[in-house]
Amino acid sequence: MKAKVYVTLKPGVLDPQGKAIHHSVELLGFQNILDIRQGKYFEIELNGNLSVSEANDLVSKIANEVLANPVIENYRVEIES
Amino acid sequence: MKAKVYVTLKPGVLDPQGKAIHHSVELLGFQNILDIRQGKYFEIELNGNLSVSEANDLVSKIANEVLANPVIENYRVEIES
Repeated sequence: MKAKVYVTLKPGVLDPQGKAIHHSVELLGFQNILDIRQGKYFEIELNGNLSVSEANDLVSKIANEVLANPVIENYRVEIES
Repeated sequence: MKAKVYVTLKPGVLDPQGKAIHHSVELLGFQNILDIRQGKYFEIELNGNLSVSEANDLVSKIANEVLANPVIENYRVEIES
């Protein structure tokens, strides 16, 4: 069983890394790009004995306590059985 | 128009950062976690005049040249119109 966690900065939070990437992309001549924001992505391999709802609870807890900083970041959990 | 790019290490490539997170998660007492791999995630805001296929071509080119290292990483592009 596999879980995917997407961590993104909350909308109001400045993203200097994303801004730097955006600037580089413009310098390289790419057009029509209005904004780039960088987030994090995790693939978690889980014990197959868990139910989908147990897996969701477990991974949400890990995302909240370890993978994301809930003060400035949002996270989204997807479970693939 | 918005694009999402997911960058992950290719299967055979070692992921020390993911291993470190896995180890921390185990030390914190979480069980049933077999493996964690870390990737990158980008949200790109595009000019709305592009067609979906133009947007896909543009973002794939940026992913290949800037966001990912194709030698060791795979990437996946999603366009939301």
